[in-house]
Amino acid sequence: MTKDYRAECADVDARVGALFKAAPAAMKPYSQLVSAVSGDKALSGKVKELMALSISIAIRCEDCIVFHLRAALQHGATREETIETISVAIEMGGGPSVVYGSRALAALDALTE
Amino acid sequence: MTKDYRAECADVDARVGALFKAAPAAMKPYSQLVSAVSGDKALSGKVKELMALSISIAIRCEDCIVFHLRAALQHGATREETIETISVAIEMGGGPSVVYGSRALAALDALTE
Amino acid sequence: MTKDYRAECADVDARVGALFKAAPAAMKPYSQLVSAVSGDKALSGKVKELMALSISIAIRCEDCIVFHLRAALQHGATREETIETISVAIEMGGGPSVVYGSRALAALDALTE
Amino acid sequence: MTKDYRAECADVDARVGALFKAAPAAMKPYSQLVSAVSGDKALSGKVKELMALSISIAIRCEDCIVFHLRAALQHGATREETIETISVAIEMGGGPSVVYGSRALAALDALTE
Amino acid sequence: MTKDYRAECADVDARVGALFKAAPAAMKPYSQLVSAVSGDKALSGKVKELMALSISIAIRCEDCIVFHLRAALQHGATREETIETISVAIEMGGGPSVVYGSRALAALDALTE
Amino acid sequence: MTKDYRAECADVDARVGALFKAAPAAMKPYSQLVSAVSGDKALSGKVKELMALSISIAIRCEDCIVFHLRAALQHGATREETIETISVAIEMGGGPSVVYGSRALAALDALTE
Repeated sequence: MTKDYRAECADVDARVGALFKAAPAAMKPYSQLVSAVSGDKALSGKVKELMALSISIAIRCEDCIVFHLRAALQHGATREETIETISVAIEMGGGPSVVYGSRALAALDALTE
Repeated sequence: MTKDYRAECADVDARVGALFKAAPAAMKPYSQLVSAVSGDKALSGKVKELMALSISIAIRCEDCIVFHLRAALQHGATREETIETISVAIEMGGGPSVVYGSRALAALDALTE
Repeated sequence: MTKDYRAECADVDARVGALFKAAPAAMKPYSQLVSAVSGDKALSGKVKELMALSISIAIRCEDCIVFHLRAALQHGATREETIETISVAIEMGGGPSVVYGSRALAALDALTE
Repeated sequence: MTKDYRAECADVDARVGALFKAAPAAMKPYSQLVSAVSGDKALSGKVKELMALSISIAIRCEDCIVFHLRAALQHGATREETIETISVAIEMGGGPSVVYGSRALAALDALTE
Repeated sequence: MTKDYRAECADVDARVGALFKAAPAAMKPYSQLVSAVSGDKALSGKVKELMALSISIAIRCEDCIVFHLRAALQHGATREETIETISVAIEMGGGPSVVYGSRALAALDALTE
Repeated sequence: MTKDYRAECADVDARVGALFKAAPAAMKPYSQLVSAVSGDKALSGKVKELMALSISIAIRCEDCIVFHLRAALQHGATREETIETISVAIEMGGGPSVVYGSRALAALDALTE
């Protein structure tokens, strides 16, 4: 029952890529929004990806968890920073954030091993 | 990791059928509510199923996506109408609606191939 | 305790206008997304605004209800179409959509009297 | 800034009454669903209204809090039972359930003084 | 496609156990919160677990459904009480609670057979 | 219609204080959870409060917005950092995060003038 989070990453990429082709009118400006938010400005790109991860856990979106966890790791987020991000989600989301936070931790282990 | 959306449809039907038997007191009036909302009135049944699909994406309910996508297709919804429905969900739901919209698109491909 | 929905419209406009000035990097592409989704294509602009209204009710966002209800009315949505939109939200959202749907109805009355 | 929860109750009743008149096709079966769920069966009506209250807090629906709190009180729910219901919501909803739970407590004080 | 809910229980336990080890600073007080809410006080532990189950269905958290359903059964909840709990969730959550309620019923069958 | 966000802060404090007295069994461990998550560790307290703010906007909890915005400001968050936090919420929440983000901006102006 242990999920294969590397395969999940590839699956999200493939699906979102297909959506980009099918719905370019909406996806192009959405991508520009993502680009505009990313990058080091007043807040670092790393912090903003961890922020997006905390939201992903709090709203219980597993695809989003995998997507933003990977991005945070690419920005250099550490294991300890990721765990504190999960903790903020638990403060803001209670039990459901515990179980989705546990999925984020499993994905962290899978993507960094 | 690609989901089998035809099997998912059958699974939802089986589960909801079992719930209908187990909880008829709640499910009978709920079914009447569904019937009352469906059908061509001021809005067409097709538009209302697409509306339910847009809500399903926005609230991240995969069973609901499959269920209302199938119903919309049965009402004659086209691929282009479905994609615009996904786009409205993205406007209203951001990134999480992108990933759940990508699931709706994958289901659309599976149910119409 | 009856809300002044015309004033609420003006308040949303003022607040979102201020956000546009404060956060243009995010708001410009978001506005382009909104424009890309709007307009008559496979689905009419009216249907897509009603769809956004149904999502607004289902997710309990009162500012969104006011905003998309007004837009739907500007696209020519009728009272009966709006009420059917509320009904779809109730099918998808139960009791909370009843109470937020009742707010949409009150706003409909206020904006069309 | 203290809310008048008795007036809020009356306002919800008036709005939902207006919706019932405007959308009877959806509201009649929904009302039958509510009736079917209510009443003393395997679980008491009181417990089921407290359950609905816990959901209302967890999903941050203030109209729902007022509505189901009043119904729970009419079924004989005590102050201590209501507070434990708020506590379950906090376990399941974290900080947002703390602040909406605090609204439920304020409404409890207002409706029982 | 039928889910193995016993395996899901074990998977949730393993993941949450790993999170406890990784994030003890957040998980210890959260566990104390859970303990404080549990137990027979003004409301029975059984009723409070069913309440948590109703919230889990209404917010569409499958891990939470499995977790609190098992706990409710351990507190002696009956099949009929569980079904009424699902019904309250449907009243409060509409269609999405129908499909997640159907998952709760499937889990109930799996955990009690 | 412009909200008085300083009064809202005081109102949240008063309500949560009353809940603490009414439900100490749940609120004491919850407060310990909040304390454990706060403070400068792998992530700064400021970043974690901004994270909680981003979640508050994404889930549409106005009391939470006011509460965590004030805490972020007390940790030294700048206007620009707050605006980027709102932008992450918009990426993750679409239109509803635009309108709740506009409330966060209005509260920022009110609490810092």
